[in-house]
Amino acid sequence: MGVAKAMDYNNSKPESLRRLKIARGHLDKVIEMLQNDTYCPNIIHQSQAVQAALKKVDEIVLRGHLHTCVLKDMGKNGENEKLANEIVELFKKQ
Amino acid sequence: MGVAKAMDYNNSKPESLRRLKIARGHLDKVIEMLQNDTYCPNIIHQSQAVQAALKKVDEIVLRGHLHTCVLKDMGKNGENEKLANEIVELFKKQ
Amino acid sequence: MGVAKAMDYNNSKPESLRRLKIARGHLDKVIEMLQNDTYCPNIIHQSQAVQAALKKVDEIVLRGHLHTCVLKDMGKNGENEKLANEIVELFKKQ
Amino acid sequence: MGVAKAMDYNNSKPESLRRLKIARGHLDKVIEMLQNDTYCPNIIHQSQAVQAALKKVDEIVLRGHLHTCVLKDMGKNGENEKLANEIVELFKKQ
Repeated sequence: MGVAKAMDYNNSKPESLRRLKIARGHLDKVIEMLQNDTYCPNIIHQSQAVQAALKKVDEIVLRGHLHTCVLKDMGKNGENEKLANEIVELFKKQ
Repeated sequence: MGVAKAMDYNNSKPESLRRLKIARGHLDKVIEMLQNDTYCPNIIHQSQAVQAALKKVDEIVLRGHLHTCVLKDMGKNGENEKLANEIVELFKKQ
Repeated sequence: MGVAKAMDYNNSKPESLRRLKIARGHLDKVIEMLQNDTYCPNIIHQSQAVQAALKKVDEIVLRGHLHTCVLKDMGKNGENEKLANEIVELFKKQ
Repeated sequence: MGVAKAMDYNNSKPESLRRLKIARGHLDKVIEMLQNDTYCPNIIHQSQAVQAALKKVDEIVLRGHLHTCVLKDMGKNGENEKLANEIVELFKKQ
């Protein structure tokens, strides 16, 4: 299981890109729906789906960040405050 | 003030489109940042900005919906439940 | 089904109160966990559960609001703007 | 400034407790408002304020967690995956 997770993590860049490109396609769909005067709640649902997809990418990128930069730099003089602040800032904006 | 707001509302479709197209540009930027191995928290910040921009559009579209469909159909037999459910569903997904 | 939903709605005040009192109990638990130096992520999970419970109550109260005040006052002179703004404000803060 | 921040962090437990107790008072107010049939949007606003207050506490607790457990245990065999997963889980629930 640990191995599978590690693979997932190593795969996080292509996986994130794949998801971002799908999200872009869905955002194009939101634009099209608005242009075609689609029923408003359906437009908002589609937009919320794009937001959820982006949030999922954020999680994948954050996981990668924790495994690489944070692991590497935590404990280095003066870095902890910066790394912790960055993560708290991302958390705040959710 | 009431007049200005009414104008804002009448203007909601072009305003939403304008914002969606900017959001699409920013989403392209997220993809580019990921491809260029930009520092992860910066990628997530940019992605969160896209999500916030989409949420702002949702608010504009919701306001338009409340002023048009909801005003027109509330009180019609069998429509209230549907309209209320739709709004609550949008609220839940936020 | 429509009947069941209507009953749910008529029941929304005691149902909300019941949920709020449970949420208060869980908030007391968060305070206790913090005082006892519980592992931080567990404290945050418990706090997030309280937030999710409150959000669920918000949905119930919003549904009641849409069925009563909004239905009753939508269409009245000068009320639409106020009602629509209120709902959009609640949506924004989610 | 670094010193001030460090103090803030050392002070995070009493600060969190203080905020949680205020939030509990505000939750009691939500219950009272509901019992008194206060105008629904006002109830939801008050509830959203409690949620925002709890989220603020979550940030303080997360910051403390990053400075203590994460700093101490990151890099230890088998701990990174667990620590990273925990943080991503907290992020997901926001």
